Amino acid sequence: MIKKYIGALEAGGTKMVCAVGDINGNIIDKVRIPTTTPDETLRCCFDYFLEKNIDALGIASFGPLDLNINSDTYGYITTTPKPGWQFTDLVGMASKALDVPIGFDTDVNGSLLGEVTFGDARGFSDVVYYTFGTGVGVGVMSGGRLVHGMMHPEAGHMLVLPRDDDRYHGHCSFHRFCLEGMASGPAIEERFGEKGELLSERMDVWELESFYIAQAMVNTILMLSPQRIILGGGVMEQRSLFPLIREKTSAFLNGYINTKEISDIDSYIVPASLNGDQGIKGCFKLALDSVKYAE
Amino acid sequence: MIKKYIGALEAGGTKMVCAVGDINGNIIDKVRIPTTTPDETLRCCFDYFLEKNIDALGIASFGPLDLNINSDTYGYITTTPKPGWQFTDLVGMASKALDVPIGFDTDVNGSLLGEVTFGDARGFSDVVYYTFGTGVGVGVMSGGRLVHGMMHPEAGHMLVLPRDDDRYHGHCSFHRFCLEGMASGPAIEERFGEKGELLSERMDVWELESFYIAQAMVNTILMLSPQRIILGGGVMEQRSLFPLIREKTSAFLNGYINTKEISDIDSYIVPASLNGDQGIKGCFKLALDSVKYAE
Repeated sequence: MIKKYIGALEAGGTKMVCAVGDINGNIIDKVRIPTTTPDETLRCCFDYFLEKNIDALGIASFGPLDLNINSDTYGYITTTPKPGWQFTDLVGMASKALDVPIGFDTDVNGSLLGEVTFGDARGFSDVVYYTFGTGVGVGVMSGGRLVHGMMHPEAGHMLVLPRDDDRYHGHCSFHRFCLEGMASGPAIEERFGEKGELLSERMDVWELESFYIAQAMVNTILMLSPQRIILGGGVMEQRSLFPLIREKTSAFLNGYINTKEISDIDSYIVPASLNGDQGIKGCFKLALDSVKYAE
Repeated sequence: MIKKYIGALEAGGTKMVCAVGDINGNIIDKVRIPTTTPDETLRCCFDYFLEKNIDALGIASFGPLDLNINSDTYGYITTTPKPGWQFTDLVGMASKALDVPIGFDTDVNGSLLGEVTFGDARGFSDVVYYTFGTGVGVGVMSGGRLVHGMMHPEAGHMLVLPRDDDRYHGHCSFHRFCLEGMASGPAIEERFGEKGELLSERMDVWELESFYIAQAMVNTILMLSPQRIILGGGVMEQRSLFPLIREKTSAFLNGYINTKEISDIDSYIVPASLNGDQGIKGCFKLALDSVKYAE
């Protein structure tokens, strides 16, 4: 039973966000810890939680992760390109250090869960959350359940059609024309010579960016049939992207999908609603659910 | 409680397959009824089931369908291009005629359910079923549940990249480069001047076809992370497609997804196992589930 405090660990490649909250998802305290080596970084995180005397912890982490509860490497960060973090037993280490129930999922599933539990997507059962930043991540909820399947969706690498006039070679070392390669933050920077946040007046940048993101929207609608799509991450801070993405999504679909959701596309493709705390709040939900399962 | 017989109605654009079975999914009797007008066609179907004295009916139908149980048009075929069948109240008419519990889903979800319940995909919780024929349909199971969401997946219209040397304009009236437009049966026939079944020796046909189907496999793996993908429908009768699709799927993924399933791709992308009865057997499962819910 949750007595008082729950912990949230949002594990990212550059920083860890640790927070403590109550069972209603209110944040009581929050700190940032730089991501260095696993041992050093996680010791700092665990010390923080030990001091706060939490009853359960939710971890949402960069991946890829092993989420299969029956696997020998359940709870691990697996084949990440992040040096030193390959096959880090995140859940095992946390469990040993803190001795509390631990919920675990991907960073994007965490953000999705935050929005569905505590944000504007409350009440929806089928939601997709994209994060466009250094990489492109996706979290998927279907029928109220986070989708894992074989491992977890990695839709950032879906295939996209290059625009006729786009000669960019793509930023992904695996794929010639994938969403992350053509539309991640580093792709914008490499193509236009500056970071996206310095290009906000350059409408040609956002025209092209929205051309690729809209393709992801179309494929998402057709393959997952979500009731809502939430777009987060650094790239989406460029708010002028939203109307462009919506317009191009409708144009690509070309009337094929006729639902009330699609006809109200301004309420269908939306920004995150929790001001950057969606990941932390999703961790709270993972923590709460872990207690439910542990009881 | 199921006393004895359950009914299956696989509703297609050219024919209805009606069958009666036992609760273990064994087919006892099966008939085909040509699809003409809704009234005439369905009266024949319902007369068949009335005579067989069934206890529950499962219907798997061509669509699009309204699967939202809270909707006023739940159980309808909605905006189908099939003349005369727009907004046909399939479940309502069956319910009125037969007075038994009725399960209802898309034709491809029916086939998927048949394979997962009675076929080689037993034991899997996350499976995708494609049918490549006159159109391209998809059924999705995630966490043991058929995915509906906003309506139901329509992945046949996902975007695909045209092959550099392919000048075909596509067969879809909605989209320039979508899977159905580039890879359905009619697309093969229009491009090469003959039906696919007459082109089995033409390896250039299947090289090109597999190029498009493999893109669908890649996007499916990345977006849904299924444990298995089943390919059915008339086009897939061309068995030489399977090794080509598997090879190109691996090539597109380019090592990005490392799972035991992907490393054994011959067991991952597979034909249907129920010899054309997967749809009927899925209807039996829908019928059985409808009784469970009705009790």
